Amino acid sequence: KQEKKWSYGKRGMTLEEDINESNQYYLERGIAAIHKKPTPVQIVQVDYPRRSAAVIKEAYFKQASTTDYNGVYKGKYIDFEAKETQNTSSFPFKNFHPHQIQHMKAVLQQKGICFVLLRFSATDEVYLIDAEDLLFFWGRMENGGRKSMTKSEISERGHLIKLGFQPRIDYIKIIDYVYDFI
Amino acid sequence: KQEKKWSYGKRGMTLEEDINESNQYYLERGIAAIHKKPTPVQIVQVDYPRRSAAVIKEAYFKQASTTDYNGVYKGKYIDFEAKETQNTSSFPFKNFHPHQIQHMKAVLQQKGICFVLLRFSATDEVYLIDAEDLLFFWGRMENGGRKSMTKSEISERGHLIKLGFQPRIDYIKIIDYVYDFI
Ligand SMILES: [Mg+2]
Ligand SMILES: [Mg+2]
Repeated sequence: KQEKKWSYGKRGMTLEEDINESNQYYLERGIAAIHKKPTPVQIVQVDYPRRSAAVIKEAYFKQASTTDYNGVYKGKYIDFEAKETQNTSSFPFKNFHPHQIQHMKAVLQQKGICFVLLRFSATDEVYLIDAEDLLFFWGRMENGGRKSMTKSEISERGHLIKLGFQPRIDYIKIIDYVYDFI
Repeated sequence: KQEKKWSYGKRGMTLEEDINESNQYYLERGIAAIHKKPTPVQIVQVDYPRRSAAVIKEAYFKQASTTDYNGVYKGKYIDFEAKETQNTSSFPFKNFHPHQIQHMKAVLQQKGICFVLLRFSATDEVYLIDAEDLLFFWGRMENGGRKSMTKSEISERGHLIKLGFQPRIDYIKIIDYVYDFI
């Protein structure tokens, strides 16, 4: 019978938690300084109780105008979005917002390094896909094509990241390999 | 009698608003892609009313672990903090948090471009000071020296930014001049 493989997802960590931990690892070792941006909220009402901290009493989640993560590695600007799907055969574009795509275009125009980290939860696979490739498939959708990237397109164009213990998702190693660092 | 000079501050714009407007200007023209990070909040309670958006009912302001702004310009990582003071003769270090200083060190270590934009509100002057210079004066304080940078130190080491209409604070022009872009 088939040996059940060590399941990454079973540890109950989200992609975001794994990336945050990896970023912490990079930061502590002076490898890179990359951070998750705070969740944007629209603050409507704040109370200032005496002798204690201000309390936000009414606020709403805002649509992010950029991607989840950015920072610096060897002087270069690094920018990426992290997404998970339960799908096994494709990655649906409904996971992306048009303004995130817009932001990726702006980053590429400025010669920043821009990509997405896609996790297929069911199989515990994380792929790095360069924004140029994502935009290629996004463009296909805009021209009436399919509303997703297939798994095989992702494994062809993207880079499977070997998952580890520390850091959990060593995407910097892939960056070194995929992009030219002079 | 002395002509009252056109007062920048009188327009009621904060430094942050002016920088956001300048960033918008850069973004729209494809000059740079630099954004303010959202204010970090610790969300404690969220209500999900039927048929309407989630409402955050209890949240607290968190200390930011990085600086206010970052982004990309000609492939380079740009990172800065914006600060205002009512003081006229010096810029007090109480405006900076140690973790912001820590973050600047991490950015410099990664060869990112890092600086502060300091505004003297009373005189409507905005200076760009490279993080290396800021750290020099911060180190002096840590060694028992004064808890501020004097105005003359700032005007010597820093770069006065000419204020304009569009963009209001053209700090990219100064970056081109101060840093080497190959
Ligand atoms: Mg995400
Ligand atoms: Mg600030």
